[in-house]
Amino acid sequence: MEHMSTEDPAYTAAVSDLLGVLAYGELTAFIRMAVDSDLAPTLTLKSSMAGLAHTEYVQYSQLIEHMGARGIDAEAAMAPFVTPFAAYHERTKPRDWIEGLVKAFVGDGIAKDFYREMSAFVDDETRAVMGLALDDEGQADFVVGVVRDTLKTDRTAAGRLSLWGRRLLGEALSQAQAVAVERDAMSALLVGGGVDLAEVGQMFARLTENHQKRMALMGLTA
Amino acid sequence: MEHMSTEDPAYTAAVSDLLGVLAYGELTAFIRMAVDSDLAPTLTLKSSMAGLAHTEYVQYSQLIEHMGARGIDAEAAMAPFVTPFAAYHERTKPRDWIEGLVKAFVGDGIAKDFYREMSAFVDDETRAVMGLALDDEGQADFVVGVVRDTLKTDRTAAGRLSLWGRRLLGEALSQAQAVAVERDAMSALLVGGGVDLAEVGQMFARLTENHQKRMALMGLTA
Repeated sequence: MEHMSTEDPAYTAAVSDLLGVLAYGELTAFIRMAVDSDLAPTLTLKSSMAGLAHTEYVQYSQLIEHMGARGIDAEAAMAPFVTPFAAYHERTKPRDWIEGLVKAFVGDGIAKDFYREMSAFVDDETRAVMGLALDDEGQADFVVGVVRDTLKTDRTAAGRLSLWGRRLLGEALSQAQAVAVERDAMSALLVGGGVDLAEVGQMFARLTENHQKRMALMGLTA
Repeated sequence: MEHMSTEDPAYTAAVSDLLGVLAYGELTAFIRMAVDSDLAPTLTLKSSMAGLAHTEYVQYSQLIEHMGARGIDAEAAMAPFVTPFAAYHERTKPRDWIEGLVKAFVGDGIAKDFYREMSAFVDDETRAVMGLALDDEGQADFVVGVVRDTLKTDRTAAGRLSLWGRRLLGEALSQAQAVAVERDAMSALLVGGGVDLAEVGQMFARLTENHQKRMALMGLTA
């Protein structure tokens, strides 16, 4: 898939963008999950959610370290993504614990699927680093059981949370598009990788399909 | 200092209390610091504050693991402290980034000093575990520089933040007292350790003195 040389400044800029968005995404996910863990109704659930947040931070740290070793200014790389992530989180503030939980599972899932798709277009070393930052070791699986239990006792939850999941997907894609328009280098990575519009379409189809699978796992409709 | 046998059920109860309050304190500190890191004006500061939060989580995890290995039900041990910590954090919500920063430094400092004092009354193994959970490796030292810089540019900050520091100490001591009244076992640890009221008074004097030193480091009056 590598059509751009790793020496090419456009390629370097694209990798900086990609690691920047991934790192900043994990830093904000860390903060949001920690905030939302405070809404948990039990200590065990609070601890599980805090554990998810913690993993995001560890992965963020690893990325920052890698960027430093590679001579990428991490702060500069992350800066372009501060506004889109703030917009996403501002527009998707959970109103209660269970919405926060669904957001952690669904939002994080979409983001990580997207980064996995993008990692096909980078050099092996970058791909390996991205892989580490994307491996959640099924830590979020507890979410599925909690949501399913909620659906059993709360008759209105299925409709409300299904709608919530659609909104999360919509907001995530809308911010992703804003970023794609703004960040030429990252988009050029796809084009430079010989990706045509039809393939981009297929990529979005895969993202949506995986989203539907995650929603179905929780007993929700996408 | 050990006057109680480690086999004594009262001693076991006291250690469970002590590890429970320490663990839950670190879990809530993790959440609060993560929340407050979101107010940081720069990415570097956000990252530093997130790093502080992360350390609290790691130490929390170690404590939970140790409690499990020792047959202590961590959730049960933490439960009595949910309300006092919620009250403390509810009463000391930072109004801005710099108040959050001072709270991280001062509030955490007071709490850790208190646990250090208490660790004189436990067995070696428990003391070692507590030591690990209390070692922050000077990670919070960046706070001092940031607060001092703020004082240079904001003429009203010194008065406001000095007042804030006094409020943090007051709220912390007030919650600590509520806990002491409520948790007989933990208080008995001091009495069983042969500590009289005068010594408790000296302990509080030391806590206050260390608090004053921390405030002075930041250029504030206690």
